[in-house]
Amino acid sequence: MDVESYSKRIDDNRKVYLDGEIVKNVATEPAFLGAVNVINSYYRLQVEKPETHTTLDRSGNAIAASLSIPESVTDLQSKRRHYKEIADLSFGMLGRTPDFMNAAIMSWAVHSEFLGDSSATSYSQNMKDYYRLCCERNLFVAHGAINPKIDRNASLGSSEHPFCGVKVIHTNEEGIVVSGAKMIVTLAPIADEIMVFNMPGLKPGDEDFALAFALPIASPGLQLVCRKPLSRGGEASFDYPLANLFDEIDSYMILTNVFVPWERVFVFKDVMRSNQFYDRSFARNHAGHQGAARAISKGEFVAGVASKIAQDLELSLSPNVQEQLGEIASDLEAAKALVERSENQSQADDSGTFNPDIAAIHALRINFPRMYSRALEKIRSLAPGSMMALPTEADFKGSNGNLLREALGSTNLNAMDRVKLLNLAWDLVGEGFGQRQLTYEIYHAGDPTIIARSQFRGYDWEKPRQSVSLSLSNIDD
Amino acid sequence: MDVESYSKRIDDNRKVYLDGEIVKNVATEPAFLGAVNVINSYYRLQVEKPETHTTLDRSGNAIAASLSIPESVTDLQSKRRHYKEIADLSFGMLGRTPDFMNAAIMSWAVHSEFLGDSSATSYSQNMKDYYRLCCERNLFVAHGAINPKIDRNASLGSSEHPFCGVKVIHTNEEGIVVSGAKMIVTLAPIADEIMVFNMPGLKPGDEDFALAFALPIASPGLQLVCRKPLSRGGEASFDYPLANLFDEIDSYMILTNVFVPWERVFVFKDVMRSNQFYDRSFARNHAGHQGAARAISKGEFVAGVASKIAQDLELSLSPNVQEQLGEIASDLEAAKALVERSENQSQADDSGTFNPDIAAIHALRINFPRMYSRALEKIRSLAPGSMMALPTEADFKGSNGNLLREALGSTNLNAMDRVKLLNLAWDLVGEGFGQRQLTYEIYHAGDPTIIARSQFRGYDWEKPRQSVSLSLSNIDD
Amino acid sequence: MDVESYSKRIDDNRKVYLDGEIVKNVATEPAFLGAVNVINSYYRLQVEKPETHTTLDRSGNAIAASLSIPESVTDLQSKRRHYKEIADLSFGMLGRTPDFMNAAIMSWAVHSEFLGDSSATSYSQNMKDYYRLCCERNLFVAHGAINPKIDRNASLGSSEHPFCGVKVIHTNEEGIVVSGAKMIVTLAPIADEIMVFNMPGLKPGDEDFALAFALPIASPGLQLVCRKPLSRGGEASFDYPLANLFDEIDSYMILTNVFVPWERVFVFKDVMRSNQFYDRSFARNHAGHQGAARAISKGEFVAGVASKIAQDLELSLSPNVQEQLGEIASDLEAAKALVERSENQSQADDSGTFNPDIAAIHALRINFPRMYSRALEKIRSLAPGSMMALPTEADFKGSNGNLLREALGSTNLNAMDRVKLLNLAWDLVGEGFGQRQLTYEIYHAGDPTIIARSQFRGYDWEKPRQSVSLSLSNIDD
Amino acid sequence: MDVESYSKRIDDNRKVYLDGEIVKNVATEPAFLGAVNVINSYYRLQVEKPETHTTLDRSGNAIAASLSIPESVTDLQSKRRHYKEIADLSFGMLGRTPDFMNAAIMSWAVHSEFLGDSSATSYSQNMKDYYRLCCERNLFVAHGAINPKIDRNASLGSSEHPFCGVKVIHTNEEGIVVSGAKMIVTLAPIADEIMVFNMPGLKPGDEDFALAFALPIASPGLQLVCRKPLSRGGEASFDYPLANLFDEIDSYMILTNVFVPWERVFVFKDVMRSNQFYDRSFARNHAGHQGAARAISKGEFVAGVASKIAQDLELSLSPNVQEQLGEIASDLEAAKALVERSENQSQADDSGTFNPDIAAIHALRINFPRMYSRALEKIRSLAPGSMMALPTEADFKGSNGNLLREALGSTNLNAMDRVKLLNLAWDLVGEGFGQRQLTYEIYHAGDPTIIARSQFRGYDWEKPRQSVSLSLSNIDD
Repeated sequence: MDVESYSKRIDDNRKVYLDGEIVKNVATEPAFLGAVNVINSYYRLQVEKPETHTTLDRSGNAIAASLSIPESVTDLQSKRRHYKEIADLSFGMLGRTPDFMNAAIMSWAVHSEFLGDSSATSYSQNMKDYYRLCCERNLFVAHGAINPKIDRNASLGSSEHPFCGVKVIHTNEEGIVVSGAKMIVTLAPIADEIMVFNMPGLKPGDEDFALAFALPIASPGLQLVCRKPLSRGGEASFDYPLANLFDEIDSYMILTNVFVPWERVFVFKDVMRSNQFYDRSFARNHAGHQGAARAISKGEFVAGVASKIAQDLELSLSPNVQEQLGEIASDLEAAKALVERSENQSQADDSGTFNPDIAAIHALRINFPRMYSRALEKIRSLAPGSMMALPTEADFKGSNGNLLREALGSTNLNAMDRVKLLNLAWDLVGEGFGQRQLTYEIYHAGDPTIIARSQFRGYDWEKPRQSVSLSLSNIDD
Repeated sequence: MDVESYSKRIDDNRKVYLDGEIVKNVATEPAFLGAVNVINSYYRLQVEKPETHTTLDRSGNAIAASLSIPESVTDLQSKRRHYKEIADLSFGMLGRTPDFMNAAIMSWAVHSEFLGDSSATSYSQNMKDYYRLCCERNLFVAHGAINPKIDRNASLGSSEHPFCGVKVIHTNEEGIVVSGAKMIVTLAPIADEIMVFNMPGLKPGDEDFALAFALPIASPGLQLVCRKPLSRGGEASFDYPLANLFDEIDSYMILTNVFVPWERVFVFKDVMRSNQFYDRSFARNHAGHQGAARAISKGEFVAGVASKIAQDLELSLSPNVQEQLGEIASDLEAAKALVERSENQSQADDSGTFNPDIAAIHALRINFPRMYSRALEKIRSLAPGSMMALPTEADFKGSNGNLLREALGSTNLNAMDRVKLLNLAWDLVGEGFGQRQLTYEIYHAGDPTIIARSQFRGYDWEKPRQSVSLSLSNIDD
Repeated sequence: MDVESYSKRIDDNRKVYLDGEIVKNVATEPAFLGAVNVINSYYRLQVEKPETHTTLDRSGNAIAASLSIPESVTDLQSKRRHYKEIADLSFGMLGRTPDFMNAAIMSWAVHSEFLGDSSATSYSQNMKDYYRLCCERNLFVAHGAINPKIDRNASLGSSEHPFCGVKVIHTNEEGIVVSGAKMIVTLAPIADEIMVFNMPGLKPGDEDFALAFALPIASPGLQLVCRKPLSRGGEASFDYPLANLFDEIDSYMILTNVFVPWERVFVFKDVMRSNQFYDRSFARNHAGHQGAARAISKGEFVAGVASKIAQDLELSLSPNVQEQLGEIASDLEAAKALVERSENQSQADDSGTFNPDIAAIHALRINFPRMYSRALEKIRSLAPGSMMALPTEADFKGSNGNLLREALGSTNLNAMDRVKLLNLAWDLVGEGFGQRQLTYEIYHAGDPTIIARSQFRGYDWEKPRQSVSLSLSNIDD
Repeated sequence: MDVESYSKRIDDNRKVYLDGEIVKNVATEPAFLGAVNVINSYYRLQVEKPETHTTLDRSGNAIAASLSIPESVTDLQSKRRHYKEIADLSFGMLGRTPDFMNAAIMSWAVHSEFLGDSSATSYSQNMKDYYRLCCERNLFVAHGAINPKIDRNASLGSSEHPFCGVKVIHTNEEGIVVSGAKMIVTLAPIADEIMVFNMPGLKPGDEDFALAFALPIASPGLQLVCRKPLSRGGEASFDYPLANLFDEIDSYMILTNVFVPWERVFVFKDVMRSNQFYDRSFARNHAGHQGAARAISKGEFVAGVASKIAQDLELSLSPNVQEQLGEIASDLEAAKALVERSENQSQADDSGTFNPDIAAIHALRINFPRMYSRALEKIRSLAPGSMMALPTEADFKGSNGNLLREALGSTNLNAMDRVKLLNLAWDLVGEGFGQRQLTYEIYHAGDPTIIARSQFRGYDWEKPRQSVSLSLSNIDD
């Protein structure tokens, strides 16, 4: 597999704006460096540990394991290990690594029949072709799915705002021309391509927006405006140990008359298929499975931070600290259990594919943000004062560094290691970096209340209801 | 297997007090009838569905499946199905059915070596013999483990209160004589025997209390004083559909100079072994596994009640109701996932036995009470007013019954069925019966804060901590 | 004042159904006895402590203090003391004592102008007259405001269910004839009269239901069907110390062609005025003020129960128990503070009346249920096992009473007092009685989410928003 | 009053370390500029609005109103308005403005008798003199009370760590010499003086640490090491609207052989008086009152942010948003109510001083952090995606600024204003600045669990318990 080319590929003529400037080369831009390093490591894993990170397709070619089609519970477990090791590269802080879209693209391709065709093209075949392209080129595909909530009280179709979503402007024999915007387009500045689609919820009248297509980031007319970076470019990684390594840059994508050839179009002016795109294809199940494996990585990391603080700061004798850590461990167990259940409950669908069970995936998606949020609160509570008393690396290197070392060190933990650990904890709990992580954890798969409603609508209530009917039938009138 | 004899066996000269009177025959006492029926059904399952509810011991004799020694993950899964079907007899409302102690007795016997021996007897052998007895006689063994918290600020050994625990009074060649009390001795009034022991926490100086032994309920000097019944003897099961069927009677056990032969003694004046009794033997793991399977049964039932009310009262269009039910489903999924994880994570110990993983069991024990409590609150919120507007069965049978039927019925649910369902929900949420169930769920395995501390102390923190050490090592000083 | 006549007045030909039978005399019915005793005490207070419980109207006649028109903050404080002492009769367990409707009737009368008039009658004058009648006769007026939620997915006007609300059937010169039902008609079985109206939310098309009127309980065609009683008629008050004294009976009111004379009609087929009835009149403010004073009484009681258990069971050395009780005290302080704020923030309206500030009342209504619910959970956690180990009074009087006394008593608390206290706590926390109290506390003034939305809509956001505008204006572009 | 001199006064030879360097002039250091501006505004208020911000002492000299001795409820209300207007300068973000210590110093002076005297000096008189000095010089006094939690499992007296607290090294006729450290010494880098003392909790054996004294920041041997700044020196206030204006710098104070003259010593090697210092003097009540007024300012600000986002982003039609905002308003009402109650419940003590009621202060301290934390979560939930989609000011000024303006603006809110508002919200919710504010809110007055225990120990439980005793006495045995 060609894993060297990534940094070169993304040094193209793409239009990525950062703090008012166009980025010359996204591969070397300091604000992206942490993320670029993780993606490079992602590709390196394919070479260094091919048994976990690649698989052979039906033609015998090695492809990224995330693109493999699972045909058994064991296959799902293998994919999970693959996702997990990728997530471990950033301790779960990067969510939109290439395996995320790969998992979805695989599922769209396998279940592409429902996409149908038209006189212009076969959407179904386009998706199969795109999957093959991703396999062959080992691409990093980002996605743009969230419409900007700018004009909240109008539907897409009735809004007069030119950037309320992405809509088709005109078409010709070669393809379609689109304009508009998507928000929270994560890691796209350093990706190869982007998949553009809508989450469910479009309504009749929104036809012009009811699209799904893929295109290169460097497409003419496509620009990405990055949010305020959370990394601290000019500052020491001692002081910001996570922010400087793992900022997963989000961007605003603006499209102005962007051409998309028909062979890259998967849904076209079709509200029903746009609404079915993520769920009927089981893309949610597979992408959710990747996200669940990543969550475990992050869950382990926060458990580790809590445990290390308790241990190194000698807090473990406190019954209250023991209780807090016992709860973090229990939450981690529950998260792991749900990922495994999503695999164990899976069964072959008509295509022979094993899709992770959505009820377990939803359950994790609903519960994990609470667990994660609770864990951060617990970590904060372990040493709130000490986290507010952190001098910088420069202080330790300055004229009174020796005095600081004496004042802030203890017999079992020297001052530098103590401050480094607390800096890491504060990055996780209190810095913009950590709070963006929390926000991501809560909302990245959609508002938890909406997920809960999906869970309700899709759940098999028959079995629980039967036990109630049985109990009611026991009652004599 | 002899399953007929149960009701006859418990009609002996036991001393069970209920509301100031000695119960003549516990098998026919109305306050116990619901529970007795469940136990009878428990024995009947062994005959009607032997493939799930019995197993062959090494001599080829059929024994209760809960007494089987699991030697694979599959064995644990089989035992869980067995536990679950027993629990379904009461929708999880009865927790201390015979399989609970059976699971523990199996584990005590398999791991009995640590019990050791003395000049008087072999505690280890006694436990093996007791296990064989339970297999042969298909007994219903209750347990008494909780010392009355009467004299809270003194240790057992230093307390002058004669009923602060159970202590040895004197010994002779045949056995030991004990006096004292245990509280929350659940279902013992209708059991065959009782296992008496302590939960961990005894201290040096508590030797006289550091005991474990078993004896028949009908032993001279043993009396059981029942708590206020929660069933509504004189009232219709229409009005109290759960309370009248599933009150799991708790009692206070008072021992006055009760003789226990040496062969029924398992721990004797040994603080260390008393403290190890429940955990080092893995009894907690197996009893916890039974409890987890039971919790699933109850979790399904409350999910079913919520779903049925939403459906039958036509609430399902409300986004908020959908969200509430989606959360209940997600909690149920998490509980199921944890039980399965406790099995899947199990590995053979030195004896070749597969013990359910305690981290997953603890995680369920810590999280399930919250899930259950939340589910009750959600059910209450579905129809709080309607639950406060429930006439009795007598009203429907009275002179204005027809008017009531018209007033309280709807097109898709007749008035009687509506009230019956709401009565059932109120029994679960609001009656003493339901609140005792909630109290049981929170506290029956020990205070959740104490379980959380156990989780902390036993957890494998190495792996999570490693990821933090790795991330710290990335930082340049 | 004539305070003797109450029990006689309610012994009339009213139609109250309880458990399938018509109650012969509600004044002596055991299931109502606790509540009747409280109402008798309410009237007795007017004689025994007239300075707090009566006031002189403009003609110099003594009237119930709850009917007085507050014209200063001091007047509101006096009314609060009056409400609080009435609530103390039942430790806040009875919410719909006569002062509740009195507070509202006063406010309807003072602000009656908006009720207007028609060719048939003057609604405004009718309300003034009704107020005078209540003053003169010292009546106990219940209320029926909640429409049965039987046909949830239809509006009142479009529903075909004959008992989905109360509607006018026909009218004549003397008055109107109504049929239908109201639910959760609390204490009405032992009241003199009932005020029937709707909470806001009616829509165009609901005109026939858009009514407000008052009439005697004994009116022909009016029947009250009681819910399952929560008192334990046949059982000792030792065993059920609160349930047997303070069950505030709820009922279902069914009206069949009931005649209401015009002079008792306050809103007639007027959706706008029906929706304004409770708020524009400030009735909600005054009734809410009474409810707030009552909540303080209940808050003190639960704080007392928690404190007494901690003290008597010698739990107070535990840091965790101290923390729990400190939180209960803090919640009680917050509740008291909000009632006082509702008074201190009040200003004279156009009529010169001081209406309690609704923002503070809403804040209490939203927060108090959470405080109360948390307090119950804390009480449960103080002694969950001991609450499950309570023999009955009959046990203490039975043959092994002496043994029980020894087993369950401690040096600082004899067994009977200990069990009595725990019985009281369990009635509050775990019995149907206590859970109905909790349900009442959460929902009696409307679903808390709806109250929160009212708070939003009525709140003065200008001031908070100004500080944000100021901070934004500080920023240089 | 001389209000001009502040910036000059603090430009002395103090040793303040920031990011490895000694700060040349703290009055002009960019990282402190926001805070210095607030303090300057504080002094300016004394001139511009003397009726609120100054008062006359007994000699007729104008002093800061925070130093006035309250002798009525009205006086406390006046002081609260004074505190509140000071807090409004930073929307409650700065907590340790001069009025904080002033409130405490007033109370220490008024109640100084318990400090006693020794052969060396009169501690009581020293405190009175120090109060007069603060009055005369209109000083800004910071405080250092928290001992570094470096050596957690040893008492101060038994620790061998030289910086575990501040201890006396030797004494002579002129005074004492101290060494050691205090952490979270807030705003001290820009204060005139510092009051050093301990919170309660010292034990016998800790005598050398049982001190209270005051001294100038510029004292030889005193150094302050600042934590990592949260302001963003080099970046636009458009991008970080709060962080750049209101970082309340915390520091670590290290003392090396610092001389303190006897007249500035208030407690000397006296564990009992050290433990009484904050509470018996009612300093906690008055400082807590200031803190409560500040909390109201902050509470209003977060309510305003939530309201402005809901309004400007047109979210207010959503029932869920209405509910969230209604809850924020209710929490704000409760906080206001508690401050007022602390005043209204106050009574003259032996010295004629009105001390704010500590039960209400504690109640606010326990509840406000939860309210504040909930409010942040609600603000996050209003627009989580939009907060992650914020370009910088430079982007708007860059080459595609016009396009961004079109893409991110709406009809009722232009893009710049929208982003500015969301930046402000994110500073509050998600940046290190906002999370330090949250940490401060939760912990600045001590761990909430410890405050809850204090509430328990000091609370008047008699009244609540009486109602329970009364209810128990109603029960017939």
